[in-house]
Amino acid sequence: MPADTAAPSPTASLPTAAVILAAGMGTRMKSALPKVMHPVAGRPMIHHVAGAAKACGADRLVVVLSPGLSAVADSLPGASIAIQDPPLGTGHAVACALPALEGFTGGVLVLFGDTPLVEAATLLRLRAALEAPNVAVAVLGFRPPEPGAYGRLVTDADGQLDAIVEAKDASAEQLKIGLCNAGVMAISGAHLAHLVGRIGNDNAKKEYYLTDIVALARADGLSAVVVEGAADEVLGVNSRVELAEAEAICQARLRRRHMEAGVSFEDPASVRLMADTVLGRDVTIGPQVVFGPGAVIGDDVRINAFCHVEGATVAPKAIIGPFARLRPGAKVGAGAHVGNFVELKNAVLGEGAKANHLSYLGDAEVGAGANIGAGTITCNYDGFNKSKTVIGAGAFIGSNSALVAPVSVGDGAIIGAGSVVVEDVAADALYIERARPVHKAGWAARFRALMRKSR
Amino acid sequence: MPADTAAPSPTASLPTAAVILAAGMGTRMKSALPKVMHPVAGRPMIHHVAGAAKACGADRLVVVLSPGLSAVADSLPGASIAIQDPPLGTGHAVACALPALEGFTGGVLVLFGDTPLVEAATLLRLRAALEAPNVAVAVLGFRPPEPGAYGRLVTDADGQLDAIVEAKDASAEQLKIGLCNAGVMAISGAHLAHLVGRIGNDNAKKEYYLTDIVALARADGLSAVVVEGAADEVLGVNSRVELAEAEAICQARLRRRHMEAGVSFEDPASVRLMADTVLGRDVTIGPQVVFGPGAVIGDDVRINAFCHVEGATVAPKAIIGPFARLRPGAKVGAGAHVGNFVELKNAVLGEGAKANHLSYLGDAEVGAGANIGAGTITCNYDGFNKSKTVIGAGAFIGSNSALVAPVSVGDGAIIGAGSVVVEDVAADALYIERARPVHKAGWAARFRALMRKSR
Amino acid sequence: MPADTAAPSPTASLPTAAVILAAGMGTRMKSALPKVMHPVAGRPMIHHVAGAAKACGADRLVVVLSPGLSAVADSLPGASIAIQDPPLGTGHAVACALPALEGFTGGVLVLFGDTPLVEAATLLRLRAALEAPNVAVAVLGFRPPEPGAYGRLVTDADGQLDAIVEAKDASAEQLKIGLCNAGVMAISGAHLAHLVGRIGNDNAKKEYYLTDIVALARADGLSAVVVEGAADEVLGVNSRVELAEAEAICQARLRRRHMEAGVSFEDPASVRLMADTVLGRDVTIGPQVVFGPGAVIGDDVRINAFCHVEGATVAPKAIIGPFARLRPGAKVGAGAHVGNFVELKNAVLGEGAKANHLSYLGDAEVGAGANIGAGTITCNYDGFNKSKTVIGAGAFIGSNSALVAPVSVGDGAIIGAGSVVVEDVAADALYIERARPVHKAGWAARFRALMRKSR
Repeated sequence: MPADTAAPSPTASLPTAAVILAAGMGTRMKSALPKVMHPVAGRPMIHHVAGAAKACGADRLVVVLSPGLSAVADSLPGASIAIQDPPLGTGHAVACALPALEGFTGGVLVLFGDTPLVEAATLLRLRAALEAPNVAVAVLGFRPPEPGAYGRLVTDADGQLDAIVEAKDASAEQLKIGLCNAGVMAISGAHLAHLVGRIGNDNAKKEYYLTDIVALARADGLSAVVVEGAADEVLGVNSRVELAEAEAICQARLRRRHMEAGVSFEDPASVRLMADTVLGRDVTIGPQVVFGPGAVIGDDVRINAFCHVEGATVAPKAIIGPFARLRPGAKVGAGAHVGNFVELKNAVLGEGAKANHLSYLGDAEVGAGANIGAGTITCNYDGFNKSKTVIGAGAFIGSNSALVAPVSVGDGAIIGAGSVVVEDVAADALYIERARPVHKAGWAARFRALMRKSR
Repeated sequence: MPADTAAPSPTASLPTAAVILAAGMGTRMKSALPKVMHPVAGRPMIHHVAGAAKACGADRLVVVLSPGLSAVADSLPGASIAIQDPPLGTGHAVACALPALEGFTGGVLVLFGDTPLVEAATLLRLRAALEAPNVAVAVLGFRPPEPGAYGRLVTDADGQLDAIVEAKDASAEQLKIGLCNAGVMAISGAHLAHLVGRIGNDNAKKEYYLTDIVALARADGLSAVVVEGAADEVLGVNSRVELAEAEAICQARLRRRHMEAGVSFEDPASVRLMADTVLGRDVTIGPQVVFGPGAVIGDDVRINAFCHVEGATVAPKAIIGPFARLRPGAKVGAGAHVGNFVELKNAVLGEGAKANHLSYLGDAEVGAGANIGAGTITCNYDGFNKSKTVIGAGAFIGSNSALVAPVSVGDGAIIGAGSVVVEDVAADALYIERARPVHKAGWAARFRALMRKSR
Repeated sequence: MPADTAAPSPTASLPTAAVILAAGMGTRMKSALPKVMHPVAGRPMIHHVAGAAKACGADRLVVVLSPGLSAVADSLPGASIAIQDPPLGTGHAVACALPALEGFTGGVLVLFGDTPLVEAATLLRLRAALEAPNVAVAVLGFRPPEPGAYGRLVTDADGQLDAIVEAKDASAEQLKIGLCNAGVMAISGAHLAHLVGRIGNDNAKKEYYLTDIVALARADGLSAVVVEGAADEVLGVNSRVELAEAEAICQARLRRRHMEAGVSFEDPASVRLMADTVLGRDVTIGPQVVFGPGAVIGDDVRINAFCHVEGATVAPKAIIGPFARLRPGAKVGAGAHVGNFVELKNAVLGEGAKANHLSYLGDAEVGAGANIGAGTITCNYDGFNKSKTVIGAGAFIGSNSALVAPVSVGDGAIIGAGSVVVEDVAADALYIERARPVHKAGWAARFRALMRKSR
């Protein structure tokens, strides 16, 4: 299954919008790439967040960006873009999104582009909390092992959220609270503009803090509530070290989801999956397998150790590897075999066909049941153009052959070992390119004697 | 050393039998394979259990199965099979095994086919506990980090076991007990039938629980005792996620045993071992090495990174990899080298011989000291039959050669680079198959000019 | 950046010496190699220690060895060697080093050859502690999760170190102390000989314990202080299991340093680095990459999954792998590509040149922009000598070619696919070695019919 199908079904009856805060380059990443575009499991962080929002039913998306982040905007064609310039805090960022939400009275999720692990199921609970009478704000809380510098969620006897208190402003009593502010919120669209518009900046940094919205709502006689999430959902990524942590958590989550769906991993921790990896039923994945984006693996496929699979489709019951590389455009047919040190690029391997050893098939079509001998190379590039090789069903390509494209080998044809195929070969024909062998008796003995003498 | 040699020597004086409970398909595995046949470190779970029982001296084995699990029965040819149908609880399962133990008065271990990590040394202690006067039952206890839903072992002031209390039936005081029931027991054969026969099913599920045996024994004036094991020994496997946990624990255990025996691992956590992997003294294993079943590695061998070794024997001082694949039937001689992107299948590589680059040796015999050039392929398959290649001692196979089997190359012969060898070559001869080279001056320049113009 | 540059700048004003205790073979390692020569991240443990000492400004190094460890001495040419024979404890070992420190009045670090993870920054703090008035000894303390058998550091109300008490001699109150003795010390050179000379051996083992120096200093009216380090810095290595732990800690540290310097790791935990690995800015490292010693990787290089890189230099913007092996002497030019199942050994690949598939380039020079076809082999070895292949800029080597060295291919020349090149090729020429192809119509169909009949 694709990992995405694990997302809950959205409840269509609740109009939901999401605002994703993604201003800032993230200088601590030390990278030319905008921070929120750094990938986790092969998908930009902000796309994880947008995906979770969409999976929980948010059909309107507003992304708040700094100027100059058009690459982020371009990657999210369905989103409204709001520009925050200069950045004056999270409250200000949400205020920048208000014009895009004009007249929207559903639930508004406020998410962060650098918090990629938040789960749709959690957002659904957060969103649903707005449906209780009088609730204007639902805040995502979590319990970190070390609350330390996190803002604390102060609740009253009825479980209502009284305030979000920054750790530096907290009393000794408040610092004992284990429930911390994850930043993520759901806010009633009916009250959003009125609440956000009144957030002030009367503080040391002269910034507008979204957390003030709780006190403002309470002051209006509205309720605020807490919804708890897991600590690993709210990991914010500000450095490559934190990016690596997020990657590790995401990988563990993907592996677990696939295992629960019936995929066998011989050594799960050594396998790297992408967010979009699709694995069929009863697939077996060996140790040390790396998936790149766009892999679609059918039922009962076995992928052995040390394989690299990217942009490739593998039909049921095929066997791949060990040490195979499937590159974009590789299509492996049902029951076909791709063996060790074999590379497929933009190549179709027909049903039951075999390419088991030391071969390169690029820009090629191989028919059903064909046998590609060890060391076979498709010469698809002449230094200027890429050309195509077509090999018919049931053909047998002898070992160490080179097929100089464009060229075709007919159904059932046989190519003698070591041949360079420069002409089309008819169906059922034998093609052989080979010189007459010469035996020179005793030559090797004489050569060795000479070499030893010359030392 | 093979990991198995770490097992304790059985004490021959104590007749011991083992009953392994293995009824049930394990639907949570979502697999066509019976649960207890899922492998850990390449060995079915139930074989781990049977192996531990045997290593602690159990020479009688009774396996309790549901109908339709003949694959399990077939895999354990020395065991008596008892069929439990329908499954009415653990007490009922042991009752099903009683006919096979008729008249046996030694110690009877009760084990579980889905608890593969229990160690022989622990079973030996459990079995030995029956030798104290009046002891009829010894129960394996463990202390999980979270006792939660585990049954608690209630002991009296003398350390005797009073009862096993299910968590749901336990008092608040009993729930504070950290010592939990692992399920595994040793029961005196002299009392087994009498005790098990009286287990009732007067409970919500109408099942017969083996844990009742403790109270029955105490009521008879017999003693029950607890033997403690490690929490990771008693992990039960009911899902693929738990199977992965068991695999990880088993791998760590195997690595530790080999390290303690003097094997060097450059990056132990990245190496995957099998339960039957045999590693000699002063073997060095690089990072990212994967062993399949049946690998036997001699002293002072070095296996470099990214190797895949299965069903292969490697003699002392050989050097393998990186990026080498040894398949079943590969036999690498003393001091021989197998280099990168080289595959051996059913192939003998003689003492000191070298196959260092990009080669496939299948169904081949290579003599001592021979040199197999880069890109050499044995063409062992003609689409119908597999044939053999024999290469003599001290022969030199030029690069990019193809040897069309059946074919033999004599001792000390030399094959010219790029040749296809289709005839036997005499000892000390040179064999060369090559056309006359043609030089076309300026051709490449003209070709480039043409291609650029045509763009 | 090379990991080493993370070391602090030494404060030149403080003369510092280091004594490294490295007597003993380490029998628990079960190895012929002296214990302190076992590598961590590719560097002998004692070289890590010497490197940390040097990085914190120690320009005199005394290594205390047992007789027969000349391999250790030879590996540290700048160090004074003191022989301890027989070994009579740590105090005795330091006494053996005194002659080499005759007249030295700076700070003397006492380090251990089997404690490879101590950091230069920590040693700098330890050394600096000697500069407070009257301080003669500074002891490195740490807080292990389980203090257990470690010596406890007993401090007074002012934070002065009163004594180091062995766990077995400690009172119940002292056993509650969490601050433990790491063994490492800094001692004032002015007092060293006088203090060490009075250490006695009036104890059960009749050994001279360096820890006694604290009480001796206090008795002289001098001060001793504690400097705290991290628990993972002071891990002592006595077995291969502990060596593996040290390796894991070191690898995590190296990865973190490189990440903090702006290197991207797609799956950090699966990458193995060496202490001397140099990675440029914005380098991207895929999963499952193994570095051996001597890798120098330029800015903006991408190293894909499953690569093995040792003794190789890669210029900026090159792309390596997946499944590439760079061996010692490989030099990859700017923007060049080395693809899957390609091995470079003592080979220069020019700027922008490509060797993308299934090739072996050994003892070769490839010019800028050249294209090395799939399956190309340089035949650099004739069984006796290694010879060189030179390929000119812009040359195009057709697939499955073999270049029999010594041989040269001129700039811009083209080699036809499948050729064996045995003569030098002129610039811009075409070289082709190929027999006339033969087509045998219907042959394959007849062959199959025959084979099927003969079954």
